[in-house]
Amino acid sequence: MWAELARLGRNAGTGGYRRYAWTGAEQDCRDWFRSEASARGLDLDADGNGNEIAWWRPEPATGRPVVTGSHLDSVPDGGAFDGPLGVVSGLAAVDLLRERGITPLSPIGVAVFCDEEGARFGVACAGSRLLTGSLSADHAAALTDRDGMTLADAMRRAGFADELGPSTLLRDPAAFVELHVEQGRALIEPIGIATAIWPHGRWRLDITGEGNHAGTTRLADRRDPMLTYAETVLAVRKKAGQAGALATFGRVEVAPGGSNAIPSEVRAWLDARAPDEATLERLLAEITAHATARAGRDGTDLSVTPESVSPAVYFGGPLFDRVRAVLPAAPVLPTGAGHDAGVLATAGIPTAMLFVRNPTGISHAPAEFAEPADCLAGVVALADVLQELACR
Amino acid sequence: MWAELARLGRNAGTGGYRRYAWTGAEQDCRDWFRSEASARGLDLDADGNGNEIAWWRPEPATGRPVVTGSHLDSVPDGGAFDGPLGVVSGLAAVDLLRERGITPLSPIGVAVFCDEEGARFGVACAGSRLLTGSLSADHAAALTDRDGMTLADAMRRAGFADELGPSTLLRDPAAFVELHVEQGRALIEPIGIATAIWPHGRWRLDITGEGNHAGTTRLADRRDPMLTYAETVLAVRKKAGQAGALATFGRVEVAPGGSNAIPSEVRAWLDARAPDEATLERLLAEITAHATARAGRDGTDLSVTPESVSPAVYFGGPLFDRVRAVLPAAPVLPTGAGHDAGVLATAGIPTAMLFVRNPTGISHAPAEFAEPADCLAGVVALADVLQELACR
Repeated sequence: MWAELARLGRNAGTGGYRRYAWTGAEQDCRDWFRSEASARGLDLDADGNGNEIAWWRPEPATGRPVVTGSHLDSVPDGGAFDGPLGVVSGLAAVDLLRERGITPLSPIGVAVFCDEEGARFGVACAGSRLLTGSLSADHAAALTDRDGMTLADAMRRAGFADELGPSTLLRDPAAFVELHVEQGRALIEPIGIATAIWPHGRWRLDITGEGNHAGTTRLADRRDPMLTYAETVLAVRKKAGQAGALATFGRVEVAPGGSNAIPSEVRAWLDARAPDEATLERLLAEITAHATARAGRDGTDLSVTPESVSPAVYFGGPLFDRVRAVLPAAPVLPTGAGHDAGVLATAGIPTAMLFVRNPTGISHAPAEFAEPADCLAGVVALADVLQELACR
Repeated sequence: MWAELARLGRNAGTGGYRRYAWTGAEQDCRDWFRSEASARGLDLDADGNGNEIAWWRPEPATGRPVVTGSHLDSVPDGGAFDGPLGVVSGLAAVDLLRERGITPLSPIGVAVFCDEEGARFGVACAGSRLLTGSLSADHAAALTDRDGMTLADAMRRAGFADELGPSTLLRDPAAFVELHVEQGRALIEPIGIATAIWPHGRWRLDITGEGNHAGTTRLADRRDPMLTYAETVLAVRKKAGQAGALATFGRVEVAPGGSNAIPSEVRAWLDARAPDEATLERLLAEITAHATARAGRDGTDLSVTPESVSPAVYFGGPLFDRVRAVLPAAPVLPTGAGHDAGVLATAGIPTAMLFVRNPTGISHAPAEFAEPADCLAGVVALADVLQELACR
């Protein structure tokens, strides 16, 4: 199952995955999922946002459903585990429960959420946000990729009707449990349980100056947005370190982009995350103030636009206690990474997360890795949790 | 003549020109040139590098030729004057000499050099460098654009045979005179005469680190090439100011380029120019040392590769004195901008340059401008110089 999926959407040059929403590589992943679900006799369902689910509904499973799952899309040149491990483990957990001869009292669903990474249209967890209604259909439909294509057009090109909006795909579940590869080096045991997702978001910085000739414009006459950007990058790193937060510039676009032309505009995306919302807000305010001051000295103009901001999520309550009781040896830990589980939790669905150990701490890169033995331990742990939740 | 050319290769959104070598927009400019030359009864000739010339060869013009001209290609979203003004003025000067009833003793050529800006394949003045042999045919043929297409393939796609190499297109000229819009605010009279071109070049910086997840990788565990780049941008500005030089980062590429991924690589192009070669070399050494030290602290690797470096050019000798005698009121000034005239001068051809005033100092941008009256003064000055050189 893993080997077949691992071939899809892989870039031969980098070894990384490029499975962006509504592209051919992502469609291949969907086909793989449907084929695996059909082979197991699971019932497939989908909503108008591109989210899919495979149901195991043995008679007399009449309780409120229990859902697991994750996503299949990737960041640019991402790793093999971020997302797919949760989907594969969900299907494997169903296999394991059947091997155990279990007949659940509630239906068990394995979900695939669309466009979790937001690599193409800029909004992370777009599928789960649309499903829960925290992202409006109109706003989502108008999102554009780097080539100017809207999300709605991209869906139509991929052969999907544009029927974005809140959906009942998950059938009012009693619980959602997402298994995911851990993305730092915070987990030293094979399996961990999430306590929280840091509040996080991405902000777009538009810095405009004056395009001019690099060989003839005196330094004093320049209004160069690249200087404002560079100062901001260094300030962000320093202030994030002081705040105990994380902040990153991973994407930048320069116009007009000629090597012998002073830029007229630099557009950059800031990813920032902090242990709590007050810290994140203070960090953003400090960064904006520092960058604005530098823009004043450079003669440039700066605007900061939030593109997707997620509040803190705390995994607690009875569900958390039940998961801990099933996995008493598993350490608990927070994460700085956003997940569909966080979106569902924010929407009021009882939600838990399991992490599988990441020995190198590398993620969102081709070298992302988890040991096979740890992945198998993850399947067992997920099956144990689903059995606890769906069979009592 | 100007109005027709001004329509070609213009981007409706920015108002700037995108006339890159071997693209449709550049072919349109070539067609315009050939049509203007034919309408004047000038003899067209071309070489295997994409350079073209229109000859006025009235009987008994048997002396060594006198050549003027410039280029028609542009930087990304460049202005209307950089290049085309010299070609249009050359044709208009021929018109003016004919109106004056002059019959030159030497043929007068109006040349169009290919790919002066190097916007597509990275090497400035590729056409004149190939013509003079300072750029090898093999090296040029293998240059690639951002989409990975080689120069040789781009030529074939545009319907040109790939016959790169030194050429005799200019027919061993007695003199070459290039008229060009001034590109700073250094010229306060309508017309000026060039004394020198600053040594200049572009260098590619490859900074490699480790791609990773922006939301989970501790700051202390990162090897983020964006930090090395940002520090380098600020250091370059400071050191260029101290050296009385110019330095610019106008193009940067980030891999993998996702907003929630720490970059694995930042590639940036440094444009640097200085009043003399010793200053330029010292500036590059200082920049490289500073960036390397920062890379050491960031855990990144840095390499600096020269892509095209041009030595200082001093316009002097008998030709400079004759031009000054024709235009006694014109101030003399150096420029930081590279030109085909510099390449030809370096190859040993007696070369002079005239500048037309730029009231705003803006160049390589849509707002580039010269007053019509100044452009007409340029045509008269060029005609006067050509008359002096070709009729005695």
